[in-house]
Amino acid sequence: MSTRNIYLKTVPPEEAVALAKANLDRDALFGTERVPTHEAAGRVTAGPIYARYSSPTFHAAAMDGVAVMAESTFAAREDEPVALEQGEGFLFVNTGNPLPEGKNAVVMIENVVQKDESTVLIDGPAFPWQHVRRIGEDIVATELLIPQNRELTPSDIGALISAGIYEVEVRDRVRTIFLPTGDEVLNFLDKPEPRAGQVIESNSQVFRAYAKSWGIDAQWSAPVPDDEDALRQAVVDGLRKGCHMVVVGAGSSAGSKDYSKKVFESIGTVLVHGISVMPGKPSLLAVTDERSGYPGRLLVGAPGYPVSAIVCHEKILAPVVHWLMGKSAPERREADIVLARKTPSRPGMREAIRLAAGRIGENIVGAPLARGAGMISTMTKAQAVTYIPEDVEGVEQGETVKAELLVPKSDLDRVLVHVGSHDNTLDLLANELMGLPDPLRLVSSHAGSMGGLTALKAGSALFAGAHLFDPETGDFNFPFIERYLKGIPVTVVNLAIRHQGLIVAKGNPLSIRGVNDLTRDDVTFINRQRGAGTRILLDHHLKKAGIDPRAVAGYENEEFTHMAVAVNVLTGAASCGLGIYAAAKALGLDFAPLAHERYDLVIPDKYMDDPRIKTLIEIIGRNSVQTKIKAQGGYETDMTGQIMRPGMGLGQD
Amino acid sequence: MSTRNIYLKTVPPEEAVALAKANLDRDALFGTERVPTHEAAGRVTAGPIYARYSSPTFHAAAMDGVAVMAESTFAAREDEPVALEQGEGFLFVNTGNPLPEGKNAVVMIENVVQKDESTVLIDGPAFPWQHVRRIGEDIVATELLIPQNRELTPSDIGALISAGIYEVEVRDRVRTIFLPTGDEVLNFLDKPEPRAGQVIESNSQVFRAYAKSWGIDAQWSAPVPDDEDALRQAVVDGLRKGCHMVVVGAGSSAGSKDYSKKVFESIGTVLVHGISVMPGKPSLLAVTDERSGYPGRLLVGAPGYPVSAIVCHEKILAPVVHWLMGKSAPERREADIVLARKTPSRPGMREAIRLAAGRIGENIVGAPLARGAGMISTMTKAQAVTYIPEDVEGVEQGETVKAELLVPKSDLDRVLVHVGSHDNTLDLLANELMGLPDPLRLVSSHAGSMGGLTALKAGSALFAGAHLFDPETGDFNFPFIERYLKGIPVTVVNLAIRHQGLIVAKGNPLSIRGVNDLTRDDVTFINRQRGAGTRILLDHHLKKAGIDPRAVAGYENEEFTHMAVAVNVLTGAASCGLGIYAAAKALGLDFAPLAHERYDLVIPDKYMDDPRIKTLIEIIGRNSVQTKIKAQGGYETDMTGQIMRPGMGLGQD
Repeated sequence: MSTRNIYLKTVPPEEAVALAKANLDRDALFGTERVPTHEAAGRVTAGPIYARYSSPTFHAAAMDGVAVMAESTFAAREDEPVALEQGEGFLFVNTGNPLPEGKNAVVMIENVVQKDESTVLIDGPAFPWQHVRRIGEDIVATELLIPQNRELTPSDIGALISAGIYEVEVRDRVRTIFLPTGDEVLNFLDKPEPRAGQVIESNSQVFRAYAKSWGIDAQWSAPVPDDEDALRQAVVDGLRKGCHMVVVGAGSSAGSKDYSKKVFESIGTVLVHGISVMPGKPSLLAVTDERSGYPGRLLVGAPGYPVSAIVCHEKILAPVVHWLMGKSAPERREADIVLARKTPSRPGMREAIRLAAGRIGENIVGAPLARGAGMISTMTKAQAVTYIPEDVEGVEQGETVKAELLVPKSDLDRVLVHVGSHDNTLDLLANELMGLPDPLRLVSSHAGSMGGLTALKAGSALFAGAHLFDPETGDFNFPFIERYLKGIPVTVVNLAIRHQGLIVAKGNPLSIRGVNDLTRDDVTFINRQRGAGTRILLDHHLKKAGIDPRAVAGYENEEFTHMAVAVNVLTGAASCGLGIYAAAKALGLDFAPLAHERYDLVIPDKYMDDPRIKTLIEIIGRNSVQTKIKAQGGYETDMTGQIMRPGMGLGQD
Repeated sequence: MSTRNIYLKTVPPEEAVALAKANLDRDALFGTERVPTHEAAGRVTAGPIYARYSSPTFHAAAMDGVAVMAESTFAAREDEPVALEQGEGFLFVNTGNPLPEGKNAVVMIENVVQKDESTVLIDGPAFPWQHVRRIGEDIVATELLIPQNRELTPSDIGALISAGIYEVEVRDRVRTIFLPTGDEVLNFLDKPEPRAGQVIESNSQVFRAYAKSWGIDAQWSAPVPDDEDALRQAVVDGLRKGCHMVVVGAGSSAGSKDYSKKVFESIGTVLVHGISVMPGKPSLLAVTDERSGYPGRLLVGAPGYPVSAIVCHEKILAPVVHWLMGKSAPERREADIVLARKTPSRPGMREAIRLAAGRIGENIVGAPLARGAGMISTMTKAQAVTYIPEDVEGVEQGETVKAELLVPKSDLDRVLVHVGSHDNTLDLLANELMGLPDPLRLVSSHAGSMGGLTALKAGSALFAGAHLFDPETGDFNFPFIERYLKGIPVTVVNLAIRHQGLIVAKGNPLSIRGVNDLTRDDVTFINRQRGAGTRILLDHHLKKAGIDPRAVAGYENEEFTHMAVAVNVLTGAASCGLGIYAAAKALGLDFAPLAHERYDLVIPDKYMDDPRIKTLIEIIGRNSVQTKIKAQGGYETDMTGQIMRPGMGLGQD
């Protein structure tokens, strides 16, 4: 274990950024170039720019009308208009025309009465310089138009060209390269099919997409093997290509195969190893010295886990790169968000919590998504990220936190926050809702049926999907609603009848037919989490069959979705699990049916007039959508879209 | 005047956007294309995307360490470690390795003690699946990864590639062309030198810069002459090139040379002519019909004045174009800003007020800039824009308004808000401050010396530049500070001694030597505004010479800056004006000296510890900066950077 690196003290990202700034000589690193002004938007000026011409370069009519000497109209009244002769008295002008010699005001054409061919009547006094754009009103020749170190906006481009500046001296672009590393990493350009132990490299492209939004050049290489010399070679090659910053993907941690730190130390000085943010911790920063042949450049070890890498890009690289460019760092808009669930946090580390967030009543409510550093899908699902500070041990349910928005703020009004049981039909609805002329976004926090009811009670969901079977009454959901949502009037709309059963391997090699097979020595089960309707259904069937859960191997292994259960079966990690037919079908697995059940949407009455809920119900009522629900397999839509009442059970039963 | 258009009823921009959406068939207009996923950031998905592979595709070690069967560690205690044998008991794993068959947990290497070659000691129980990334933990094969109509973020690109999606079907890009119009308009590509009546075309490039930020294709053409047939031809050519939107620059107003509406009516239906926003009013929207040969496309008449065009782009084109792309419209961040000046507004019209804004104490304070639709330079100076609603007649000084930020919010902490007298040295300081490692932005509202003191009193400036001469005492500024800033302790720092005099044409053809020449018949004067120190100086000299201001031709014509006065002289609009030597020199004019005066910075004591003020004073004290101040000509720097006391006058005098 002597080959293992040791983390330096972790530092907050702000300190990491400050260290990078203090150790880079920006002016030595970047030259300037001359570019046509009309191609310079987003570039940063290398020096002050002074106007060549005034704008306007002449006194100009600001309206269509007649140019006059204001003094000649001072006596004009509505009942006593002044008559002016063409030439000496007035001249017609259009907007933008130079003001004729000897005239100092324009009267709008709407206020002019043509008396005859060459005479007009003016019925009110004009004040000097009215409707005239004076010389240099906008820009005065020789004055400072744009200072140095200014990121040129669209308006700036207009001002520069107006002032006769056709070329501008700007700072060089920042050039970077991303080097993915790892023997197990496959080059996505080969369109690989990964086997166990392999992953498809994608971090380089996340970096490139960020780089594009930052306006910098970003190359990337094929994956570099886990070999110190090969990595050093690749880094130096990047420097030789003129890169101001080389980013090594993965290998920045403290493992025995993490070579970034060693390589960086061999050609430069490590500034930061480890930041106090999770995910993101194994971020590594160094500055090259003479040994690299290209001193003064920035070396970055970006973490290998995708969310860690994103935190590294957002919290360290974005500010450093923008500082290198002479730009302000991009800012995410902030919002106050009410946390839908208690969220513990590790003291001493800042924790990035991705939130599925949307407006509910007056509040924006955010349901924390899974926290794993490897969960890139949480970034595609989240509308916001909140950072729980180092000195906070956690946030209670219902507490308000400051969060950075990943979407425009107005999008939060177009999000349907669902908390509850998972069903594939929700994905189908999510896609349908995105197809509307003004799309709605359905975000779903998989908390099980009971979790959904709890969320409604806490005001942290617009609606909840539930399929809770009550053995005593044979009814669905209502007995639970009566018990847990006392005092909260709700409407219950059926989404579908589902087929639940045991998901088994293709061809059902172990001949699993029912819950009695779960106690067999050769059978391993994969369960759902506590509070899931499917787990309650399993417990009901085990009880009916007189089976002790402890006799079921794998009963303690929990997954949160039907699809996750099915994947366990597909890969052989479990022999079977209870789930819906649609999940088995999606992965080409077999299915031993156990029961039908009703999957309903539980909606607080106070949200029934919310336009988002109205749209949701309208969509569910569409024949085209019901056809798609049925086509998934394992669903009946006889009651879909109908309002449920206590005691209805499965309807036709 | 029968050829003049008549405005339809003006509509709010939101209604204009809604009309465009209602009259465009987005799905008929746009096809889809297949692009490599790694090039698809910012594109919009044409349909739902389902995962091909799970991520991970296998149970994977999430840490470097040893893989174990959790159950075998349950008895482990710190004082009673469990010994495990390599193979059956444990196996070494690195992060990312597949979990070996028969193992269900990973113990971090830091918590493992190597007893001998093949035995390790574990001193605490591992729970099942600890430090294991389970199959499909992040992404489950076949599940919905990204719905239709989703703008792909950097994270999405990562998720897609991770799930084996190497190509994606996305919506076509929006293609547009901008057609500048006008006989007086010069093509900037020719690097023209404009003469009276001519303007350099730049709106096409402002549009292109916006288009680039929106991620759409934007071509542009050379200026189209003011001719109905030529314009129609150009529009149809644009449609033939496949443009979904043709934007005609200028010609959308109601003047006799405004052909856009006629042309649009000849090949389509006009939806909107005139929006209730100033600037921006003459915006024009139409949809093509069969007569164009390319029905269902959007035609836009963008106003010719640059700020009007920008309002049209931001308030109409940005939302419509983003809707066409299936994206959320970009949002500017908002802030509450305290208005530094009373700001009247026209009822019935929404008025866009550009603000020079920065933090002062607890508030963000914004000084309204000039409002003219032609003032593109106000957009380069502004940090924010507030829209005074249609039903509001104006906003009082000190009232708080919601404003859209043009810069990142944190930049407002790095703005030095100056209100007061204008001096070219302020531009020089502005450029120096932008050259700092962490640049500061100096924004200046030219309100004259008295206006500056008033702003300090109202708390709407960090500091004020003043050069108020008091004839009674012969002192500068202090007599006025005592009178108008009672109870506000201030520090007065000298910026420079300036030479004031009469700015006259090159060679001084009229032989103007002093104020006595101002009453001559052949001399026209250009004055400064009321409250300007320069005007007070003029009045003092007129009084001393016994001259009645009414005897000075042009006394009533006011400009707000020295440079504007100089431009009037340069272009012959006036024969002379009182101003500083630096302004005369900048434009190559001659100068008849009248007096020296002290230009000071007046800084409330409570801001003396503000880091921005400290930096400002530090910069002024630099020798290199004083050398540059002197090099402008007409400045003495003997007292520059020194703290002034009452009665010091011009020092050596």
